[in-house]
Amino acid sequence: MMTVHSLDWAISFGDCDPAGIVFYPHVYAWFDRTFHDWLRRFGGHGALCERLGAIGLGLMEAGAQFRRPMRDGDVLTLTLSVEEWGRKTLRLSYEGRVGGHITVVGSELRALFKRTDNGMVAAEIEALRRMVEDNGQGR
Amino acid sequence: MMTVHSLDWAISFGDCDPAGIVFYPHVYAWFDRTFHDWLRRFGGHGALCERLGAIGLGLMEAGAQFRRPMRDGDVLTLTLSVEEWGRKTLRLSYEGRVGGHITVVGSELRALFKRTDNGMVAAEIEALRRMVEDNGQGR
Amino acid sequence: MMTVHSLDWAISFGDCDPAGIVFYPHVYAWFDRTFHDWLRRFGGHGALCERLGAIGLGLMEAGAQFRRPMRDGDVLTLTLSVEEWGRKTLRLSYEGRVGGHITVVGSELRALFKRTDNGMVAAEIEALRRMVEDNGQGR
Amino acid sequence: MMTVHSLDWAISFGDCDPAGIVFYPHVYAWFDRTFHDWLRRFGGHGALCERLGAIGLGLMEAGAQFRRPMRDGDVLTLTLSVEEWGRKTLRLSYEGRVGGHITVVGSELRALFKRTDNGMVAAEIEALRRMVEDNGQGR
Repeated sequence: MMTVHSLDWAISFGDCDPAGIVFYPHVYAWFDRTFHDWLRRFGGHGALCERLGAIGLGLMEAGAQFRRPMRDGDVLTLTLSVEEWGRKTLRLSYEGRVGGHITVVGSELRALFKRTDNGMVAAEIEALRRMVEDNGQGR
Repeated sequence: MMTVHSLDWAISFGDCDPAGIVFYPHVYAWFDRTFHDWLRRFGGHGALCERLGAIGLGLMEAGAQFRRPMRDGDVLTLTLSVEEWGRKTLRLSYEGRVGGHITVVGSELRALFKRTDNGMVAAEIEALRRMVEDNGQGR
Repeated sequence: MMTVHSLDWAISFGDCDPAGIVFYPHVYAWFDRTFHDWLRRFGGHGALCERLGAIGLGLMEAGAQFRRPMRDGDVLTLTLSVEEWGRKTLRLSYEGRVGGHITVVGSELRALFKRTDNGMVAAEIEALRRMVEDNGQGR
Repeated sequence: MMTVHSLDWAISFGDCDPAGIVFYPHVYAWFDRTFHDWLRRFGGHGALCERLGAIGLGLMEAGAQFRRPMRDGDVLTLTLSVEEWGRKTLRLSYEGRVGGHITVVGSELRALFKRTDNGMVAAEIEALRRMVEDNGQGR
């Protein structure tokens, strides 16, 4: 496992619910944002998919544990790690901290989806792995 | 396990990403919406929390598996089941179908958060369980 | 001006902010949802754009007045009216009511965007108007 | 009119719709985020409202013109200007640029809402104006 990217997110009023804490689905959007921000090192999601003949680097699974409440004004530092390359999947893990304390941990299982005659299917991910590792990442 | 509630969600253009499929964090917002819609049978989240002296029925964990892509125009039927009552937690499971096919399954682990001198803590959930079961639900 | 469509929206906990009222940007997403729901009568946004050789029925302007706060549990009934067809624009108006009281009014100015050598431009909208009016709508 | 604050927003994949451009309601969330980020200079929305005995600095109106499409990877620089202090309202204007080009302009009319026996009403905003101007802002 290797931490490959991090992103600071300033939590705003509109991210929070009537209990005054972050509405939890947003956290997954921040995971996704961190992932896409990482992809910019390789040209970004659109360019990568074009090179790989894919529609997208979509989700098969995602999960999170919410350890501490987060509020308007908190700055959440998210780190992204490459957990495991499968033949057709990429497992990523995320850790979020506010003021040094872990507030959330999570993971995503992603696949490279291609259009085929049988609809959208998960393709071999080796070519993506090479691109990433040629950039000295995710090894 | 008992299915206690269901909700139909009409997937709209704005729910989808540049790949033309649902942007996955929204799915958790639909889980949450199904849960809150269920709570209306017991007066809704606000009234329930007031009766229980709680701030909210918040999240400790959530996860989902995305089985098939969902698109603008699909009608997603979500069903909510009560999976398990713990001493301080409630495990819920969700299943989503479009045209009879399962597109997503997921779960939430929720707790009843109360304000104490030591901050927000998970309280015993027995009183909530009784309210729910007195309504013939979640048994 | 003619009311062409309406949609009921059940306001949920996650739609609301720490003040306990709807986080206002969501209201525009509900306008957009009402518009796309109306388009389903003509095959939906995707099919319509394909027939018209367009990328999308995008926004040039949008505005809203928020008259009364809306909360978790409120059912918002949104009505959509076709306000005016321009040569390249379509002006829509929206009215939202909760329990008979107007809570929000708004408008959108939309155009039919096509890809050209000079980038994305607003195209003549006459063909869309005919499709809509042939369905007995928006006249 | 005086520009009082600016914020850079990195547009991400999940901010965009199936046409590959920003789903427009998000833009209002970025206006709101810019406003709340500005308020941090005065302690943030929560602390300000507490000092002023208010529930929130909520919206009466908001509008925007979308001049150019924005996409994944664009960095949007938003500037906030104080347009006009009314007796009970504050008019703000926003301008967004990507790579030097204006992509969006907009405005918000906000009021300071207080709880009264007659429900939530807009209160005199003079005390807020003084706080802001004592910080050398919005004059």
